Amino acid sequence: MTLPKAVLQNLKKVIRDPKRLLTREEDLLSYGYDASFGFYRPDLVVQVLSSEETAAVMKLANRYKLPVTPRGQASSLSGGPLPVKGGIVLDVSQWNQKLVIDPEDLVAIVSPGVITAAIDDAAAAYGLMYAPDPGSSHFSTIGGNLAENSGGPRCLKYGVTKDYVIGLEVVTPQGEVIHTGGRTVKNVSGYDLTKLIVGSEGTLGIITEAVLRLVPRPPATRTLMVSFNHFVDSGRMVTKILTSGILPSKIEMMDQASIRAVEAYRPLGLPIDSEAILLIQLDGHPAAIDEEMLKIEEIAKQLDAREVKDAATEEEAKELWKARKLVSPAIVRHKPTKISEDATVPRSKIPEFCRRLQQIKEKYKIDLVVFGHAGDGNLHPNIICDKRNKQEMGRVEQAIQAIFSAALELGGTLSGEHGIGTMKSAFMAQEFSQETLDMMERIKHAWDPNHILNPGKIFPEPGVKLVLSE
Amino acid sequence: MTLPKAVLQNLKKVIRDPKRLLTREEDLLSYGYDASFGFYRPDLVVQVLSSEETAAVMKLANRYKLPVTPRGQASSLSGGPLPVKGGIVLDVSQWNQKLVIDPEDLVAIVSPGVITAAIDDAAAAYGLMYAPDPGSSHFSTIGGNLAENSGGPRCLKYGVTKDYVIGLEVVTPQGEVIHTGGRTVKNVSGYDLTKLIVGSEGTLGIITEAVLRLVPRPPATRTLMVSFNHFVDSGRMVTKILTSGILPSKIEMMDQASIRAVEAYRPLGLPIDSEAILLIQLDGHPAAIDEEMLKIEEIAKQLDAREVKDAATEEEAKELWKARKLVSPAIVRHKPTKISEDATVPRSKIPEFCRRLQQIKEKYKIDLVVFGHAGDGNLHPNIICDKRNKQEMGRVEQAIQAIFSAALELGGTLSGEHGIGTMKSAFMAQEFSQETLDMMERIKHAWDPNHILNPGKIFPEPGVKLVLSE
Repeated sequence: MTLPKAVLQNLKKVIRDPKRLLTREEDLLSYGYDASFGFYRPDLVVQVLSSEETAAVMKLANRYKLPVTPRGQASSLSGGPLPVKGGIVLDVSQWNQKLVIDPEDLVAIVSPGVITAAIDDAAAAYGLMYAPDPGSSHFSTIGGNLAENSGGPRCLKYGVTKDYVIGLEVVTPQGEVIHTGGRTVKNVSGYDLTKLIVGSEGTLGIITEAVLRLVPRPPATRTLMVSFNHFVDSGRMVTKILTSGILPSKIEMMDQASIRAVEAYRPLGLPIDSEAILLIQLDGHPAAIDEEMLKIEEIAKQLDAREVKDAATEEEAKELWKARKLVSPAIVRHKPTKISEDATVPRSKIPEFCRRLQQIKEKYKIDLVVFGHAGDGNLHPNIICDKRNKQEMGRVEQAIQAIFSAALELGGTLSGEHGIGTMKSAFMAQEFSQETLDMMERIKHAWDPNHILNPGKIFPEPGVKLVLSE
Repeated sequence: MTLPKAVLQNLKKVIRDPKRLLTREEDLLSYGYDASFGFYRPDLVVQVLSSEETAAVMKLANRYKLPVTPRGQASSLSGGPLPVKGGIVLDVSQWNQKLVIDPEDLVAIVSPGVITAAIDDAAAAYGLMYAPDPGSSHFSTIGGNLAENSGGPRCLKYGVTKDYVIGLEVVTPQGEVIHTGGRTVKNVSGYDLTKLIVGSEGTLGIITEAVLRLVPRPPATRTLMVSFNHFVDSGRMVTKILTSGILPSKIEMMDQASIRAVEAYRPLGLPIDSEAILLIQLDGHPAAIDEEMLKIEEIAKQLDAREVKDAATEEEAKELWKARKLVSPAIVRHKPTKISEDATVPRSKIPEFCRRLQQIKEKYKIDLVVFGHAGDGNLHPNIICDKRNKQEMGRVEQAIQAIFSAALELGGTLSGEHGIGTMKSAFMAQEFSQETLDMMERIKHAWDPNHILNPGKIFPEPGVKLVLSE
C-alpha cells in the first residue's frame, strides 16, 4: 500500500510533535511484530496522546479508507496489534499520563498507555486491589488488556478484566468520541457498550480512558505447592478443590516439561520427577485460610499426591510464583518458536483435556508444554518449535487443530484470555454457527462501515487457514 | 392494530396447544400491565415452550411486521414487558421445565420461565449459591432477570445478574437460534454477545436458555441493624464501611418514612423515631465476620449512631430482613400509585444524593420514601401518589426529573437495576450524547431491521415526555 501524500500532510496538522509520527523504515519494521506469529509492515505509525488526536486520525483514515491498527506494548499472543492490512498503527503506549485512584468511589481512572501492574501498585497504597493480573502485567498496557479482555492467575477468584471495567471513553471507528458506563458499579442504562467494546480486540473502537473497579485487598495470602506422580491427578485435584467449597485466588498447573525447563533455566528446587505440580494461592482471613489449608491437604492425601509444600515465608511464596513466571522464558531456550494456546474447557473436563493433550503430543510428535490457569479450565498448551522447519511446522498446524477440536468437543472455547486475532480466526466457524458469526459481523459493519479498524482479525476470511511455516 | 387473519392461522400450526394462544379480551387485558405504569393492550398472547416455537413466532412476526414483546412474570418496574405498540406478547412464564445444577462445572442450566429463587434453592442443595437476589426473586422469572440485568441486595458483594451469565441460547429478532458463550467461565472468542443481550431489555433477542455461574455458599452470615438520628449519617456510614476494607454482602437503607410505613403495616419493633436505619449482612468465615463486626461498631460510634443491634439468632436476622422486604407493600397502603426509581450515584456521592432527595421531597411536596441498596449507590426513591390526582402527578413528574438530574449531576446513572423501558426513555438524552445513543441504535437496527422486537423501549422517541397523569 502506498500512502496518499495528503494523509501525512494532514496528520502533521493533527500530531504537532514530529517525533510522534514515525515513518522511518526501521521504525515501521519494529511495529510489524507482536508476541504471536508473523510480520506485517505498517505504512505509518502515529503515537497519540489524547482522544482529540485519536478521533482526528480515525476521521482522516475514514476519508482515505486506510486501515488503522491500535497497539499498546504489543505483548499480544493472538496477533491483535499486527497491521495485517498495512496502513496506520495507532500506538497508545506513550499515553500513560493518567492514573488516578479514587479511594471513596473505589475506582481507578486511567489512560490507555498505563502499564497494568502500575494500577494495582497504586491501588495497594490505599489498601485496594486491581484484581486482573495477566502474565504480561509488568509490561503490557491497560489499553491492550481492555481490548483483549485479559485474564491471569487471580482471575480464578476475581474474574477477568471485563469484570472490572465500569466506564469507558472510546473513539469510534468513524472518529466520534463516546462515553459508556460511568463511575457507578451498577448501571443498566441502555445497551452495555462497555462490555461489548472490552474484548472486541480493537475492532469496534479505540479505548482512550477507562474507569476500573477496585476491591479491598485481602488481609492475608498463603501459597502452597502440590506435586503429583500422575499428570491427570493434578486435573482431578483442581476439580476436587473447587467442588469442596474452597475458591482459591489462584490454581496454576505446570506439567513435567514446564518443571524441567524452569529447573534447567534457573534451579529453584522444583520436583523434576513429578509429572505435574499445582501452585495454589489462598487469600482472605487468616482463620479461613488455615481451615482451607487442612481441607486441601486432605484432598491431596485422597488423590495420593506426592507432597504438599506450604510456603512458610513471604519469600518462599515469591520463589514458587517465580517458577510459574519463568515457564515462558524457560521453554523458548530449547527451540526459537513458541505457539501459546489458551483453549479453555468447562472445569469438570480438565482431567479429560489433560489426557487428550498428552495424546496429541504423542500423535504429532511435538514439543508440547502444558501449564496455566487450571482452576478455571484455561490451560496454556505451548508448542515449542522452529518456524524454519517446514515439516515440523506442518505437524504443529495439525496439533493446533487437534487441540481446538478437543477443547470444543469437551464443551470448551478457542480462547479463554488471549483473543482470536489472526491466530484463531480460521477456527471461528468451528466454535460458532454461521448465524452467530453473522450477528457479530452485523455489529462490526454497523459500527465500522468502511472496515478500517483493525481489519483481518477475529472474523474468518474465506479460504484462509492457519499457516505457520515460512 | 388489527391482526391479519393469516397470522393466527399460521400460529396455530406452530403452537399446537390452543390453550397457549390467548385471544380472549380478558386475557389480552391482563397482559397489558406490568409492575410499572400504564396499560397497553396486546392483540394476541403466545405462550412458548421451546426455541423452535419462539423462532417460528419471530419469523412469522417479521413476515407481517408485527411487534413482539417478550414477557416473564411482568414484575418489571420500568415497563419492559408492556406491549406499547400492540401486536404479540410472547409469554415465557410457562417454560419453566429446565433447571439443572451441574456441581462439577459450577453452573446451572435453566429455561427462561424458571423462578429466580428456585435456582438459588436448587444450588443450595450442593453448597452452592446463585448470587443475584432481586426483590422480586420469589416471583420473577430468570428470563426477565436476564433481559433486565437485575440486581438485588447481595449484588453489593457479588455483582449483578450479568456477572453470572456465561452462556445463552437466543432467538434473534429475525428468528434465528444462536448460541453465545458456553460453559467455561473464561471465554474471549469473538464479540461478547452474552453480555450485550443480557440487559438489552428484550430488544435484541429472546433468551431461551441460559448457563449461569454458581459460587460456593459462604460458611456463615450475620445481620446487624444500625439506627441514626440523622438521615445523612446513614449515607456517611456506607462510605466509611466500604473504604475500611470491609465488603459486606448487603447494606440496605431505610429512611424514616419507610420505617414508619413498615411499623404501621406490621409492627416489628423498628425504631420509628430514627431518621434512617442501615441493615447490614456480613458473610464469610466466622472469624472474619467477628472482626468486621467490631470495625463496624467502631465506625458507628464515630458517627454517633443511635444503636447497633446485632441479630443474635437466625430468626432475629430473618425478622430484620423481613422489614426490608415489607417496605414496598407497606408504602402503597397510604396511596394507590407507587413510582419506584433506581437512579444510582457513585459510592462517595451517597450522602450528597440523600441530601438532595430530601430537598426534592420538600420542594415538590411529594410523598417520597427512600430505601434500597445504599452500599452500591443504588437507592430506591419511591414516590407514593394517586394517579387520579392530576395536580399531584404534575409535581411527581417534576420531582422525577429533578431526581434524575441530581443523580446525573453527581456522576450517576438513570438506572442501576430496573432498566430504562418506557419509564426512563425520555431521559436517555440527558445521560448519553447523541453519538453514544447512535452507536446503540446502530446495533438495534442491524439486528432487528424491521424494529419489531419490543419496540418503544430504551430509545427516546422524538418529543415523548414522561406523562404520569391519566
